Amino acid sequence: MILDKVNYPKDLKELTIEELNTLAEEIRALIIKKVNATGGHMAPNLGIIEATIAMHYVFNAPEDKIIFDVSHQCYTHKILTGRKEGFINPDKYYEYTGYTAPEESIYDLFKIGHTSTAVSLAVGSAKARDLRNGSENVIALVGDGSLSGGEALEGLNNAAVLSSNIIIVLNDNDMSIAENHGGMYDNLKLLRETNGEAPCNLFKALGFDYLYVNEGNNIESLIKAFNIVKDINHPVVVHINTLKGCGLKVAEHNKEAFHWIMPHTLDINNETEEVEITEDYNSVTNDYIWKKVQEDSDFIVVNAATPGVFGFNKGFRTKLDNQYTDVGIAEEHAAAYTSALAKMGAKPLWAVMSSFVQRTYDQLSQDICLNNSPVTMLVYWGGISSADATHLCIFDIPLISNIPNMVYLAPTNKEEYLAMLDWAVNQTQYPAAIRVPSCELVSTGVEDKTDYSILNKYKMVSEGSKVAIIAMGSFFELGKSVKEHLKSVLGTEATLINPRFITGIDEEMLESLKQNHELVITLEDGVLDGGFGEKISRFYSDSSVKVLNFGAKKEFTDRIPLEELYSRYHLTKELICEDIEKCLNLCKI
Amino acid sequence: MILDKVNYPKDLKELTIEELNTLAEEIRALIIKKVNATGGHMAPNLGIIEATIAMHYVFNAPEDKIIFDVSHQCYTHKILTGRKEGFINPDKYYEYTGYTAPEESIYDLFKIGHTSTAVSLAVGSAKARDLRNGSENVIALVGDGSLSGGEALEGLNNAAVLSSNIIIVLNDNDMSIAENHGGMYDNLKLLRETNGEAPCNLFKALGFDYLYVNEGNNIESLIKAFNIVKDINHPVVVHINTLKGCGLKVAEHNKEAFHWIMPHTLDINNETEEVEITEDYNSVTNDYIWKKVQEDSDFIVVNAATPGVFGFNKGFRTKLDNQYTDVGIAEEHAAAYTSALAKMGAKPLWAVMSSFVQRTYDQLSQDICLNNSPVTMLVYWGGISSADATHLCIFDIPLISNIPNMVYLAPTNKEEYLAMLDWAVNQTQYPAAIRVPSCELVSTGVEDKTDYSILNKYKMVSEGSKVAIIAMGSFFELGKSVKEHLKSVLGTEATLINPRFITGIDEEMLESLKQNHELVITLEDGVLDGGFGEKISRFYSDSSVKVLNFGAKKEFTDRIPLEELYSRYHLTKELICEDIEKCLNLCKI
Repeated sequence: MILDKVNYPKDLKELTIEELNTLAEEIRALIIKKVNATGGHMAPNLGIIEATIAMHYVFNAPEDKIIFDVSHQCYTHKILTGRKEGFINPDKYYEYTGYTAPEESIYDLFKIGHTSTAVSLAVGSAKARDLRNGSENVIALVGDGSLSGGEALEGLNNAAVLSSNIIIVLNDNDMSIAENHGGMYDNLKLLRETNGEAPCNLFKALGFDYLYVNEGNNIESLIKAFNIVKDINHPVVVHINTLKGCGLKVAEHNKEAFHWIMPHTLDINNETEEVEITEDYNSVTNDYIWKKVQEDSDFIVVNAATPGVFGFNKGFRTKLDNQYTDVGIAEEHAAAYTSALAKMGAKPLWAVMSSFVQRTYDQLSQDICLNNSPVTMLVYWGGISSADATHLCIFDIPLISNIPNMVYLAPTNKEEYLAMLDWAVNQTQYPAAIRVPSCELVSTGVEDKTDYSILNKYKMVSEGSKVAIIAMGSFFELGKSVKEHLKSVLGTEATLINPRFITGIDEEMLESLKQNHELVITLEDGVLDGGFGEKISRFYSDSSVKVLNFGAKKEFTDRIPLEELYSRYHLTKELICEDIEKCLNLCKI
Repeated sequence: MILDKVNYPKDLKELTIEELNTLAEEIRALIIKKVNATGGHMAPNLGIIEATIAMHYVFNAPEDKIIFDVSHQCYTHKILTGRKEGFINPDKYYEYTGYTAPEESIYDLFKIGHTSTAVSLAVGSAKARDLRNGSENVIALVGDGSLSGGEALEGLNNAAVLSSNIIIVLNDNDMSIAENHGGMYDNLKLLRETNGEAPCNLFKALGFDYLYVNEGNNIESLIKAFNIVKDINHPVVVHINTLKGCGLKVAEHNKEAFHWIMPHTLDINNETEEVEITEDYNSVTNDYIWKKVQEDSDFIVVNAATPGVFGFNKGFRTKLDNQYTDVGIAEEHAAAYTSALAKMGAKPLWAVMSSFVQRTYDQLSQDICLNNSPVTMLVYWGGISSADATHLCIFDIPLISNIPNMVYLAPTNKEEYLAMLDWAVNQTQYPAAIRVPSCELVSTGVEDKTDYSILNKYKMVSEGSKVAIIAMGSFFELGKSVKEHLKSVLGTEATLINPRFITGIDEEMLESLKQNHELVITLEDGVLDGGFGEKISRFYSDSSVKVLNFGAKKEFTDRIPLEELYSRYHLTKELICEDIEKCLNLCKI
């Protein structure tokens, strides 16, 4: 194996082109095997093996700075920078994260996971170099899909006026996570078709020098190109035409499905195996969407580049036809776009992941809420998880719920969810967001006939005394189990409340609890700081009712097992009941 | 006067070109007089008079939808859509806002004040039209300065693939608020210089049809162009070359100074009058910056397009030389750029207005805080004000302070501010933000020697009992007056605390207050929801100490006088003391 001789980039520099090509195939085999075992970003990594080898061959990291956009495509980089054991040795498969991580290696400059940041980070890195009169190369590797994000475009506009070295390697595989959307992609196509020679060139229009590499999976071509731009004294874009999924036929042909795969995807014979359809929040959402699309031509579904998260597969998207827009990676645009749709009489439903809704705050505030546009947002995956630090989904409640006019709803079961969804889509008074439960589907079998236009009415699920449990959204089931456990250990019949509304206080109900409750606890599946529970604490802060808020601490956690987080944050029925008992005992003193 | 005959756009359609030209001059005179009396956006409005007349002449608003970016340039539009009295009659000068406002007129489609939103709003408006098979024109008027914002670029990329009518009128006056920054502006220059015929064309590269109008202040040329694109069946950019400040020589020659002027600017003879220099938070900041720039070549100041807000005038910016970057309207880029600068060893100081920091949340979280980059942010103008709803500065505390790793500081006087600033700039451990006091400068005359690397240590200013006042930042002076008033009305010697840290709890001090305090009150100059006070409420929620949080309600207020807001929110010493008294009486029951 050539790879046996390669531990760090310097080892590449001794190899011939032929050996580098062999190395690429060895790495390809490793990635396919490892990613099939653990799950991960298969197709993006297969497409960028050659370019990564060529970059590390030509440039001198870590002196030269290579910054990966999203950094989901950094597997080859990790293999070449001291971490190949994470791909060779199954015992170490989980040792390294799937993104660049400075705590792992000096070759990783930033902790990155969200899209469209690399160009701006490169501009800052280059400027810092210039301030100290350094001379290293600064390289940003960015995919065509990421280019449509506002931060990337702001970055390009600023990169172009740097009067020193900065190299933008545009990894153009003609795909985002799903297909690309937007006018710029026709220009990329034109550039590919003209071998980079079309006079109308987006990057030249932005002020860059420009170099095109048609064979983006050919190490020799790439080395040649990178040698041309190495130590360049001005901004340049190197546009490389790569093949997503390169070398794994099924991935080449199913680029979207193989963007990120579950473990053992390659081992499953899809053609023979019957896939069992289980009802979940995605499926009931999509059933609702399909029904609504058919009966209401003003209804339109919008998302930004991650349709797979919502189960909007290719067939489903095609069925929705002109009542569906994927805006590409462009969450700010999605917010303003849906706001205008709603203001002009359409009924937009915008699906977005909790972690990615972070990419648009001002537009939620100014474009949507200030205009009181009746947009419906579905916020997916909100909750505490064992995710990478870059993909935490615990901040959406502080982000969304503190904006005036917004109605943020937290359903606890299928029937409630569908009632909220239908209300939100058809009303014209408020911007509404719904936190799609991130737990398994719960069904009561009983239709929810609540009128959600009466805002901030909490649901009294069962009336007890002494302790009241306000259990929100996907933590409602936890609330139920706390109630039961409390009965068994303390003999207390606690009150259980489903608040349903994240954005407001049911003053009447909270006031009434003062009569015969000593303690109110809140349970929320998200960060406590700026969240829901603190508002309950504020409400009772001038009374004798005590409050305990349960939820996540304000911290970035990184792939910490969920059980460990639940234990850390006291989010089990046993730990919660212990805290309740302690607090009640204190009350007695 | 031609204007006597013109109340609505339909009245324009009866006029000859000559009459339209006369009308333009009448409107110009009105705007100059009114804006000089009230203050406002002088130069942007003078530049767009002819284009606004031509748009309303050719298109049929309100059926045709005209969407103004930022909408600070909408004065002529207001004059032509039933609101000319607001410019003619001094008694009505303050009747209409300076931005488009749907509550004023059906000709105003959105409440807008932040930049770079119009293209995306137009795409949504056009799509809503297409869903109902409508045929009206949708027009976005956007300035060249706004184009560098991520939302505008995301919008353009999506607008270009709409397969129906959308008309982007690019008002190119070769200026942002200050000068433009970024590679795209060279392309705009090239297009102006080639009468729009250069083959390398940013808008064509994005997929648009394109039309250039060199005489952007010539009504006849504009009408001709707008007639060409009227009812077009695909996306088109109409690039019009206008003169910012057109028709007012002093504004034409001082475009930045006349972007927004104070009342009576034209009446002041600048050459003879001595301007008295008073020390304020801007001047002490700039003194610090200038000193630091001279002694430390790694120190660099960054802002996004509003240098005037910080008092970074042209001369000052020139002095800072390569240790200053204006990134243009590009707050997301500013966040990532400063993060990388800090990670690579430079010392970036990023100045940003509270209202505009909203334009970058994910980048604060992912690019800066997750990477723990020692960026220093100066957040200006934070606090409750009588501002337009579009420019409120009350949301920065929930926005910034709930992100892990961030250290958000609230100085209460000059010496504290400078100590915090110097600490923040020179440390390498944390992202730090400082909320520059929005009140008049307070000086103690005593150097602050606090070590701010010991986080979350509140300052016990005076130790009393029964009631403790935690008074943050620019509300510290209010806290002092509450303490005095409380003594005079209740005879209570209250404890006064300056928390200094917004992002954390001084558990030791708060715990110690339990000994001899019944009530803790918090004062913050911002919205309560998700803010500082709620964290204090949470801290005491399981104890017998009562808490009252004072601050703004979660609502969009629109040009409400400050006194009225203070009264509404109980932010006067009298109202606060009444609430304290009520709460203490309740405690006794």
